[in-house]
Amino acid sequence: VSQPLLQAVGVLESCFKEKFGTPRQPNLVPDATAKLRIRAKFIPEQSLKGLEEFSHVWLLAYFHLNTNTRFVSTIHPPRLEGKTVGVFASRAPHRPSPIGLSVARLVKVEGDTLHLSELDLVDGTPIVDVKPYIPAYDSVPKAVPGWTARVGARELDVEFTAEAAAQARKLEPKNPGLRRLIEGVLRQDLRNPRDKSQLKDGKPFETFLYDLMIGFVVKKGVATVTAVVPAPKAPKPRVPVPPALLS
Amino acid sequence: VSQPLLQAVGVLESCFKEKFGTPRQPNLVPDATAKLRIRAKFIPEQSLKGLEEFSHVWLLAYFHLNTNTRFVSTIHPPRLEGKTVGVFASRAPHRPSPIGLSVARLVKVEGDTLHLSELDLVDGTPIVDVKPYIPAYDSVPKAVPGWTARVGARELDVEFTAEAAAQARKLEPKNPGLRRLIEGVLRQDLRNPRDKSQLKDGKPFETFLYDLMIGFVVKKGVATVTAVVPAPKAPKPRVPVPPALLS
Repeated sequence: VSQPLLQAVGVLESCFKEKFGTPRQPNLVPDATAKLRIRAKFIPEQSLKGLEEFSHVWLLAYFHLNTNTRFVSTIHPPRLEGKTVGVFASRAPHRPSPIGLSVARLVKVEGDTLHLSELDLVDGTPIVDVKPYIPAYDSVPKAVPGWTARVGARELDVEFTAEAAAQARKLEPKNPGLRRLIEGVLRQDLRNPRDKSQLKDGKPFETFLYDLMIGFVVKKGVATVTAVVPAPKAPKPRVPVPPALLS
Repeated sequence: VSQPLLQAVGVLESCFKEKFGTPRQPNLVPDATAKLRIRAKFIPEQSLKGLEEFSHVWLLAYFHLNTNTRFVSTIHPPRLEGKTVGVFASRAPHRPSPIGLSVARLVKVEGDTLHLSELDLVDGTPIVDVKPYIPAYDSVPKAVPGWTARVGARELDVEFTAEAAAQARKLEPKNPGLRRLIEGVLRQDLRNPRDKSQLKDGKPFETFLYDLMIGFVVKKGVATVTAVVPAPKAPKPRVPVPPALLS
């Protein structure tokens, strides 16, 4: 009997509950937290031995929200002003083998669970592999970053209404780093620049972090948080993991 | 119709013709060269657009030589003197999702073909994804390298007999960098430290680079190249790519 092609080693529990609001790259939002519990069939008490000595890990994620049914060869990076690049010149999730590559800070290993931060993955993502980050293999600080060097950061200023600031303060003890997390998430400008309706000044948005709903508006380069409240409704339910990964 | 879980985007043509002699990590052997031709179904003239601007790429390799039929939770790194580490604390090929992660220098893109160097993959390896290396996402020079910091380099000196040096000189024009490639490969000590028979001083070994056979012996920390000749026999035939990856 041969092995399956791919297996989920665990399913990520992330502070980001929806794609909208999940950072587009790792290490932008240091206060982002996530947990990965290794499935019992992979004997975590042995298979994680020695991992706690590393400060960073690679997560290979299966992009199960990928809804493409046919191959698309080019993509429009949201910040590249209409120009296209080939899918193999991008980190887009829509690719022939829909595997994402993200580095995360390994905060600690506790039994079968990795505690992670600085991550860019949405809650419910199946993780197909965990590898130690080995700088002698993986770190190439002088690598030439191609078109990504020409993409403007387009950061927003982030402010809170007095009411939202008070709400965040009250929830901070239960969610350490909450205010900085919200600032880090909104600073990136979550709006899709190709969706004109989203760019209208003052349009209300919401995103879900932990079990909270964050309401905000964007006007003239400033994101103003208007509400930080227990989520009055559930975010979209998790998309189930493909059964083939859970054999 | 949904996508297959994984697809080979191409099959690597590497200067390393056998596992024995293939470096254990990338960027140890700068003169190693490889080519990756993207399959026509992935429309390389579009899907590679913009990739030529990057200096380095990630290759996600499918470890199809993995012959494990059941999960093994710990491994013995050859240079860790008998100690074991968990499979998720290692980069070993035997893992639940047998995907390898290697950075390579992108020398150039020519039509449907990537010309690569500094790679650690054997000829015939199916590549399931190519991604640009983006230092802002991927480079963490200060990451703590765990147990790998305690593994001695154990480098050998490399010498050539007069005859082998003359042979290499004659073949160099057709194989630029050949002598440096051989030195880089043998410097690492290819012998398995847990196989006592390999450690006997003077035992003859051979490895295959391009279409050449390299003969060598190791004595007292020195690898001496004894022959650099057109391979008198084929190296082991390529193990076929799993058909599921070639749909």
